[in-house]
Amino acid sequence: MSETKILLPESDLPTHWYNVVPDMPNPPAPYLGPDGEPVPPDALGAIFPPGILEQEVSTERWIPIPEPVREALKLWRPAPLYRAKRLEERLGTPAKIYFKYEGVSPAGSHKPNSAVPQAYYNHVAGIHRLTTETGAGQWGSSLALAGQLFDMEVRIYMVRVSAEQKPFRKSMMELWGGEVIPSPSNLTQAGRDVLAKDADNPGSLGIAISEAVEEAAGRDDTNYALGSVLNHVLLHQTVIGQETKRQLEQVGDYPDMVFAPCGGGCNVGGMMFPFIADKAAGRDIRLVACEPASCPTLTRGRFTWDWGDSIGLTPLMKMYTLGHDFMPPGIHAGGLRYHGVSPLVSQLHAEGVIEAVAPQQLATFRAGQLIAQTMGIIPAPESAHAAAGCIEEALRCKETGEAKTLLFTLSGHGHFDMAAYDKYLAGELDDYDYPEAEVAAALERLPKFEREPV
Amino acid sequence: MSETKILLPESDLPTHWYNVVPDMPNPPAPYLGPDGEPVPPDALGAIFPPGILEQEVSTERWIPIPEPVREALKLWRPAPLYRAKRLEERLGTPAKIYFKYEGVSPAGSHKPNSAVPQAYYNHVAGIHRLTTETGAGQWGSSLALAGQLFDMEVRIYMVRVSAEQKPFRKSMMELWGGEVIPSPSNLTQAGRDVLAKDADNPGSLGIAISEAVEEAAGRDDTNYALGSVLNHVLLHQTVIGQETKRQLEQVGDYPDMVFAPCGGGCNVGGMMFPFIADKAAGRDIRLVACEPASCPTLTRGRFTWDWGDSIGLTPLMKMYTLGHDFMPPGIHAGGLRYHGVSPLVSQLHAEGVIEAVAPQQLATFRAGQLIAQTMGIIPAPESAHAAAGCIEEALRCKETGEAKTLLFTLSGHGHFDMAAYDKYLAGELDDYDYPEAEVAAALERLPKFEREPV
Repeated sequence: MSETKILLPESDLPTHWYNVVPDMPNPPAPYLGPDGEPVPPDALGAIFPPGILEQEVSTERWIPIPEPVREALKLWRPAPLYRAKRLEERLGTPAKIYFKYEGVSPAGSHKPNSAVPQAYYNHVAGIHRLTTETGAGQWGSSLALAGQLFDMEVRIYMVRVSAEQKPFRKSMMELWGGEVIPSPSNLTQAGRDVLAKDADNPGSLGIAISEAVEEAAGRDDTNYALGSVLNHVLLHQTVIGQETKRQLEQVGDYPDMVFAPCGGGCNVGGMMFPFIADKAAGRDIRLVACEPASCPTLTRGRFTWDWGDSIGLTPLMKMYTLGHDFMPPGIHAGGLRYHGVSPLVSQLHAEGVIEAVAPQQLATFRAGQLIAQTMGIIPAPESAHAAAGCIEEALRCKETGEAKTLLFTLSGHGHFDMAAYDKYLAGELDDYDYPEAEVAAALERLPKFEREPV
Repeated sequence: MSETKILLPESDLPTHWYNVVPDMPNPPAPYLGPDGEPVPPDALGAIFPPGILEQEVSTERWIPIPEPVREALKLWRPAPLYRAKRLEERLGTPAKIYFKYEGVSPAGSHKPNSAVPQAYYNHVAGIHRLTTETGAGQWGSSLALAGQLFDMEVRIYMVRVSAEQKPFRKSMMELWGGEVIPSPSNLTQAGRDVLAKDADNPGSLGIAISEAVEEAAGRDDTNYALGSVLNHVLLHQTVIGQETKRQLEQVGDYPDMVFAPCGGGCNVGGMMFPFIADKAAGRDIRLVACEPASCPTLTRGRFTWDWGDSIGLTPLMKMYTLGHDFMPPGIHAGGLRYHGVSPLVSQLHAEGVIEAVAPQQLATFRAGQLIAQTMGIIPAPESAHAAAGCIEEALRCKETGEAKTLLFTLSGHGHFDMAAYDKYLAGELDDYDYPEAEVAAALERLPKFEREPV
């Protein structure tokens, strides 16, 4: 009888992060200032510690993971790889399906993989206070946990409407010692400006980022931490793909196709980058990012320069974008409601290395339910996007009779998303049409340059 | 560097359950009818399948686990054993602390360890429909999951006030295909009788049990499943202690003291019974059941004959009891609010094999917070009772300088209990005094016999 879970001992936790940059077809585009000129990395020194800034621009293929970070990751890593036999049988597919389960972390997703090193590098730089933003709460709770492990105060600006809708994510952050501030708040100029115009503003991720960055930039004792998009975050997540490769080796297998959910891109980078080394060496493997049909950045967006936040505080990044002030519809996969996507993932998509699909909301909840009913685990709605992409391919294999090996990242559990499943079971969820007119309008508001950057 | 998690491969999942009966100082007392005469096991054949009834009265030391049950358990088992180094350091204790983490099951606790075999034995007996009751929802969601794995319809009578307070446990059961009926309901005579007296009755576990048993007894196609107390349930849970012993062997260790939360007793049986074999053979080990100060069955109850439910439908069992109609205060560890405790655990307590302590509510939440802040995992309030007992001993070791090896069962995560932690953090929780007068009154209502049974 084959194994259901393929486990690794703690001694097999990776010793290095894998940096995809040397294996990319072209070097990554630099970050630009509003004048179209490259921004030197140390310009971000007011909000990031030196260890993080070095990683952001490193061209080394392997970057050592500090031992205290490895020790902290061992609280839940290595994460199990599952062979989803019961799912294969239910689908009647000849395909083999594996999934990497990142929901075993205390915060319930892959996010602590980067929160822990970010807290660590700030700690060794003598910083003992961090700010960040959170929407649905996955990142905020991960940073609160990491702060607790490295003796760090953490203030989290949480989108006000999310804080009200997800009170238990807030409790989780507070239990780990985090301070949760509903955003917009009166603590920052950005927040006060918003409230002056609209005292009942429900908040947005863009506003929360602005508040967190403003506070970190204005206080010597405080830095800022971001949960996706940037190179160093994707780097930290590569423990996922490295472990998975080792686990598949143990059972003598290798994937034909890999699926990961795609919002800011840290799941895609975390799982797929370690496979890109093989692909660059000629291995036949397809890498498929799975984004929401309602917020289809890679599949329908424009590859150009845009801001990472909604109001233009960050440097300009060359990425697929739907326009920095595009407001995605209110789907339940809150972690995927982002106008852009990691510059590294964007460039690899433009170069044909990473593909993308955009499943509809109902297909993702059907996939989540099927995983729950066959494998027990209840996936987060974000993770269900990768499951949906994988299941669609498995059903294609059923038609063609191909015995492909498929792999997806089950990036987190849905224990704090049961209200969404409730609506799904009650038939109250809908698919969303692609908001074509809103995207077109947002793309009109992209930054303009006197001279187009090269 | 020592390991944080001690793992076992799936091949080390136990092949047999361990039955404590042959290693008990005396044979267990039989179940009695209202006349004080022993009830033959097949009297319960209307609601339990033959495989379960055999186990309930078996005197075999080792009972094989059927292969389909082992395969289903592998969805999450073997469960990890943690060495809680960070907790030891925070406490400054010379003691070593280990905990077995059962929160890795899809339902989030140890409960599926028995739900899976119960669904299986009904399946092979040709039964495809089960009823059960649930309070806080741990057992109900475990049986819904198990029903999904063995093609079984499951109807769960959920205490109405719990169904309203814990809507997400209800969603979880429904996602796994369970049908949730708020109890008291109009579907049974027991429910209708209650509603006729009080249309707004909030329900109780006792009423829900009566509804589930009544329906199963009245329908040929339907059986009943119970989540604790009975011998077969404790038997199924012994995978916990067996795995733990093997894991400790791997690191060359053995516990001086073992702590488990105690409500109906299935955690105590699951972890401690496999150690009782060693204790019977002369090994020096202390086994400590941890029950709530507000519902202190073992520490303050009477060892006598009583019913398992509140209204007297079950056979009489010889156990520690606070009186079958005693209503425990509304503590947040809902799984420990039970008037009695497993007859096997009771007898072993009476015989001095198992000790008991009764920590206060605030001490348990402090323990839960300490586990969360040092090890990441947020314990369920029930599990926090074992943590509290263990931490108290670790602090005693700090005073005496003893380097004891301590072990506790972290039986489930608290992801669906964040409202309770919220209240704790807000300072809104209190300790509860032992309700002496209420218990004394309830003990007055114990069953009376014409001639005391022997």
